[in-house]
Amino acid sequence: MFVEDLVERIADAAPVGRLAQIDGHGFPQALPFVFARVGNALWSPVDGKPKKHARLSRLDWIAAHPDVCVLIDHYDADWSQLWWLKLYCRAEVFRHAHSEWEQATRVLAQKYGQYEQTPMFSGDPTMIRFEWREWKSWSAGGEATVFEWLANENPARFC
Amino acid sequence: MFVEDLVERIADAAPVGRLAQIDGHGFPQALPFVFARVGNALWSPVDGKPKKHARLSRLDWIAAHPDVCVLIDHYDADWSQLWWLKLYCRAEVFRHAHSEWEQATRVLAQKYGQYEQTPMFSGDPTMIRFEWREWKSWSAGGEATVFEWLANENPARFC
Repeated sequence: MFVEDLVERIADAAPVGRLAQIDGHGFPQALPFVFARVGNALWSPVDGKPKKHARLSRLDWIAAHPDVCVLIDHYDADWSQLWWLKLYCRAEVFRHAHSEWEQATRVLAQKYGQYEQTPMFSGDPTMIRFEWREWKSWSAGGEATVFEWLANENPARFC
Repeated sequence: MFVEDLVERIADAAPVGRLAQIDGHGFPQALPFVFARVGNALWSPVDGKPKKHARLSRLDWIAAHPDVCVLIDHYDADWSQLWWLKLYCRAEVFRHAHSEWEQATRVLAQKYGQYEQTPMFSGDPTMIRFEWREWKSWSAGGEATVFEWLANENPARFC
């Protein structure tokens, strides 16, 4: 099991996570999303990327089922390099009014240079906060492979 | 929405998917997995990659909740290239005794050269079959970006 410090470093470096949640009909759903870490929470804005629906389904599903699972993983042709991290989170939707809000937007702007072009918010500024309470992790080659990934994963690549 | 032919081509080319399912306690879970496509189904073996637990939790969860969601997506620093495909699947665990079994193992061996080193099966040969009935898709830049990904995504890269 990865130690907490490693979990935080992975969350800082990973450009994308996959959200597993339960929809209003009780079925599992999955989506990729971008995020910034603040403490033991991930913040993900409802941003200006083109959307399938004007109103994001994931917000409704969070209201129905706030317990979600966030997957951060590394796929590699070299299977000795594989690892994954599952964050068991409580999700909540915020429209300002949270002490971490400003820091989250700062970290997002630092992590994703894309927000110089793409608006960070679409309409009324809204973010989902995923606070993790537990996690599970696995690596094919031990933590050394994760440190190797961290060393190669230059956040600037994504800017 | 991607047409069926495109869905099949994506499933053929993508080296990894993310499985969202519901566990025995009613909570969402997510995991990366490898697979081969046969018709409108993905086959994923319980292979010889190191495992967290000897008995895979995902098999128990499928027994409890066979309706799962498989996400195949493309993340890119260029956000105009983003796309995702969600396959809504019925999952079933097989130990031989399925007409697609032999073809699935052949396609797996072709797609993943890693199986020359890593055993395709760990213990009693077992595979999960994900048959999709519906899908949803999204792309930031239209289907052209998916075709571009397909052109660059040489399955040989993953061998």
